[in-house]
Amino acid sequence: MSLIDPIRVAETTASSDAATVYVCITCQRAGMPENEPRPGAVLADATMKAAEGTGVRVRPVRCLANCSRGPSAAMRCNGSWTYIFGGLGTDCAAALIDGARLLAAAADGLLPWRGRPEPLKRGLIARIPPLDFEEDCL
Amino acid sequence: MSLIDPIRVAETTASSDAATVYVCITCQRAGMPENEPRPGAVLADATMKAAEGTGVRVRPVRCLANCSRGPSAAMRCNGSWTYIFGGLGTDCAAALIDGARLLAAAADGLLPWRGRPEPLKRGLIARIPPLDFEEDCL
Repeated sequence: MSLIDPIRVAETTASSDAATVYVCITCQRAGMPENEPRPGAVLADATMKAAEGTGVRVRPVRCLANCSRGPSAAMRCNGSWTYIFGGLGTDCAAALIDGARLLAAAADGLLPWRGRPEPLKRGLIARIPPLDFEEDCL
Repeated sequence: MSLIDPIRVAETTASSDAATVYVCITCQRAGMPENEPRPGAVLADATMKAAEGTGVRVRPVRCLANCSRGPSAAMRCNGSWTYIFGGLGTDCAAALIDGARLLAAAADGLLPWRGRPEPLKRGLIARIPPLDFEEDCL
C-alpha cells in the first residue's frame, strides 16, 4: 500500500491554508523558581525555530487558560477545527510543527489520528469546530 | 455608578457579531445507563430553546474531545477569542446564552470575568485567540 506523505502535501498547500500554532508562554510547573525560564516560553522559542521554512505561523500567547494542565499550545488553519493540547514538554516543538502541517493538509479540517505525533495524542485537551460548522445527520 | 447592561448591548450587535455556542451532545457521565438521554444532548436542547430570539446560534456537535471533563460547550464570535467549558450541568443553558451575549458585546473579543455566569468561571477549560492574533509587547 502506498501512502501519501502528509508532510509533503502540507508543504504544497501551506501558502493558502497555512496553520497557526499558539504557544502559551506563561505556562510553568508548580513550585519552579521565578528566575528560571518558563517551560512555555522555552517551548515557544523552540517552536518558532522549528517552524522556519515550513510555512507554519507560530504565535506566542500570554495565556491559553489551560494552566492546570500546561504547558499548552493550540493550532488551527482558516476553516479547520481548532485543537488545544496540554502536558507538553519543552521538547515538543517538532511535534507541534508536524501536527500543524498535518492539519494544514487535511481536506476535512480534522487533525488525523494516524500519523499524529504522540504528544498531540496523549495531550489532547479539546477540539472546536470551524465557525460555520453544522453537524450532519443529527 | 451606572453600568451598561451587556446583555442589552449584545442584542443590538447580534446581527453582525453573533456568537455561536457549540454544545457537545456525546458527553455523558461514567456508568450511566445507555437508555438514558445523554446530559450533553439534554443541555444542547435546552440551550437551543434558551437561544430563541437572542441572535445566538447554537450548534450541537458530536464531540469536543473534552470527554473526561464534560459535559462541554464552546463559544465564539467571528474575530473573538474562543472559549471552551467543561463540567457543565443540564441546567447551564441560560449561562451559556448569557455568556455568549457577553462575548458578542465585548469590543476586545475577550469574555469578561465581571458578569460572567458562574458555570463559565469554574468550568473554564481553555481559551484560544482569534486567527490573526499577535501578542503585544513580548
